[in-house]
Amino acid sequence: MKKMRRKAKQLISVQDVEDIAVGGAVLGTGGGGDPYVGKLMAQRAIEEFGSPEMIALRDVPDDKYVMLSAGIGAPTVLIEKILRGDEAVTVFKALEKHLGKKAFAVMSAEVGGVNGTIPIAVAARLKIPVLDADCMGRAFPEVQLVIPHLYGVPATPLIIADEKGNSVVLNTINNEWTEAIARAVSSKMGGMAMMALYTMDGKTVKRATLPGMLSFTRRIGQTLRLARKEKRDVLSQLLKVTKGIRLFKGKIVDLDRRTDKGHVKGEVTIQGSDDFGGQTLNMKFQNENLIARTADRVLATVPDLITVLDQDTAYPITTEGLKYGLRVTVIGIRCHAKWRTKAGIALAGPHHFGYDIPYHPLGSNGSARRGHGSSARN
Amino acid sequence: MKKMRRKAKQLISVQDVEDIAVGGAVLGTGGGGDPYVGKLMAQRAIEEFGSPEMIALRDVPDDKYVMLSAGIGAPTVLIEKILRGDEAVTVFKALEKHLGKKAFAVMSAEVGGVNGTIPIAVAARLKIPVLDADCMGRAFPEVQLVIPHLYGVPATPLIIADEKGNSVVLNTINNEWTEAIARAVSSKMGGMAMMALYTMDGKTVKRATLPGMLSFTRRIGQTLRLARKEKRDVLSQLLKVTKGIRLFKGKIVDLDRRTDKGHVKGEVTIQGSDDFGGQTLNMKFQNENLIARTADRVLATVPDLITVLDQDTAYPITTEGLKYGLRVTVIGIRCHAKWRTKAGIALAGPHHFGYDIPYHPLGSNGSARRGHGSSARN
Repeated sequence: MKKMRRKAKQLISVQDVEDIAVGGAVLGTGGGGDPYVGKLMAQRAIEEFGSPEMIALRDVPDDKYVMLSAGIGAPTVLIEKILRGDEAVTVFKALEKHLGKKAFAVMSAEVGGVNGTIPIAVAARLKIPVLDADCMGRAFPEVQLVIPHLYGVPATPLIIADEKGNSVVLNTINNEWTEAIARAVSSKMGGMAMMALYTMDGKTVKRATLPGMLSFTRRIGQTLRLARKEKRDVLSQLLKVTKGIRLFKGKIVDLDRRTDKGHVKGEVTIQGSDDFGGQTLNMKFQNENLIARTADRVLATVPDLITVLDQDTAYPITTEGLKYGLRVTVIGIRCHAKWRTKAGIALAGPHHFGYDIPYHPLGSNGSARRGHGSSARN
Repeated sequence: MKKMRRKAKQLISVQDVEDIAVGGAVLGTGGGGDPYVGKLMAQRAIEEFGSPEMIALRDVPDDKYVMLSAGIGAPTVLIEKILRGDEAVTVFKALEKHLGKKAFAVMSAEVGGVNGTIPIAVAARLKIPVLDADCMGRAFPEVQLVIPHLYGVPATPLIIADEKGNSVVLNTINNEWTEAIARAVSSKMGGMAMMALYTMDGKTVKRATLPGMLSFTRRIGQTLRLARKEKRDVLSQLLKVTKGIRLFKGKIVDLDRRTDKGHVKGEVTIQGSDDFGGQTLNMKFQNENLIARTADRVLATVPDLITVLDQDTAYPITTEGLKYGLRVTVIGIRCHAKWRTKAGIALAGPHHFGYDIPYHPLGSNGSARRGHGSSARN
């Protein structure tokens, strides 16, 4: 058994990082930060230190520890501020030192967006494995919006540091306080900072996180790349690999987007075309896309994934990349079953983001037209 | 020699705390927080744990450590939030643990205001001495506005904690960053929090702080109390003990006061009476009183001390206690010589607070009328 696993040892290549970044943009549902920056960080680290190994959750001994490496703050700032990846390593090592524990592996908080690739850079530089798992299966804008929170795992001790050399250790009474304080600190640090957090032992991490998420993200990126290369229908391939549902197709006719306390908030109106002719889609977002609805129906809500694609390429568009006149396809992807629990919905459903509508499970009835997934044509 | 010092062992009594609080209100120059709260904390601690010893700077061995205990945030919030004093002890012990060093004594950041008495509570509870010294000789609203900063002493490692159980350890590249981050954290913690900071060894603390400040503060309070009791002229006694100067006398005719980012900012206009008849005083404040000037003359500026007294009692009035119609006397007290250096003025002079006027040393020429100090009559 051990031999078999060794045989299947998986190394993360520069190409893998490329695919993970694209897959991360799909699962980022419009937010999660520009995967380009995390991609650069990870690719440079691999070129310099070699490919890190990706291991499965089951490969973590129960008494060993894993820690998360993640950025916090306004994604746009990241591009100008953090390019080298040293900061992520420094803060990660600081948490190890603070706890007096070595990390057996590094793990991603969210595969959606930049936080999917940053841990790969840390893994390469520290020569430790990166876990094939994450804590969301998507992107979310707050420290406590993760599956481990549902299992009572504290984010602290959490260390947050900037590129200048300032660092802060948080110990809090709950993860909501961690979010509030870490957000204020990252804002003061210039809008973006690196964190190490959510230390879990092997036993906990197997229970309280989502297995296979890094390889799934890579598979999405691979699928898009190969479909494009082989001139196959990219959208239908994407829907197939994500078990996604085409929700809408049309042209952006109105856009209201503003930056509020480090979050990109707003809504977009899409006028339907083809089989959606005569309909209008309204979509709310706060970094990530939150709610998609027509005049008479809710098509999808968080924590399910809502992703906007360019109609021509079927590649994902971030909320910051939305533009008047752009022709888009909107797809929905079911969130992980752990999000669909009562506690999961209470934590990260529409109410959390201030919307007074109930969670509407994607594909649960005619309104989300389950059939679209397989019959969709771009 | 040792015997002599032992003979002169000074214990801080409940009455001493009362006097230190009143003296702290004089040196608080309108800010520094309500001494009443710190007084209660210290008096309760003394009643429960006994009087702490006050020791001189020279009694700290060069290789032992002292640490500062202080509150940070909007003074008004303190009253509702922190009454027990446990938080100050908890955060102080957390810093000892973090550094792996025991504190030989606890010290005040500023004798002006609430931070003059909080260290007495900590000293009583931990059964360690409180130092007869401080880092300002007055009150100031920012972490880096202290004499140790002029000597290159870092405020970090700094621990900041709230009454709920949240705590944060800061390590920064300079004291300005410490101020920015600690301020943001205290604001997020609900406007007020306790800190332990500025760890110094005996050698450093003797060089970089102000000796005798706690007993001086007590002497001011004693003087006011006895003058009142003995029905002597309180103002002239106060001016005598502080070597102060009467700057102005009159009635408050205009007041603009607002809360901005946790600071109480504004200005007050005082119409002169008696020998100041026909003149008008304008005074700017930001927590503390910053600048006092008439139409044609600057009477005093930070870092010199400007204190507003009630005309009837000659007791100090905080910037929050200023009221339309109140009859007041404004006095000036020279700041410590270490503030009057080029570096001291650059750090805490009018420019730092956004005023484009030079520092005007109190009593340096006719404009501040040096003679007033001794000839003043209420």
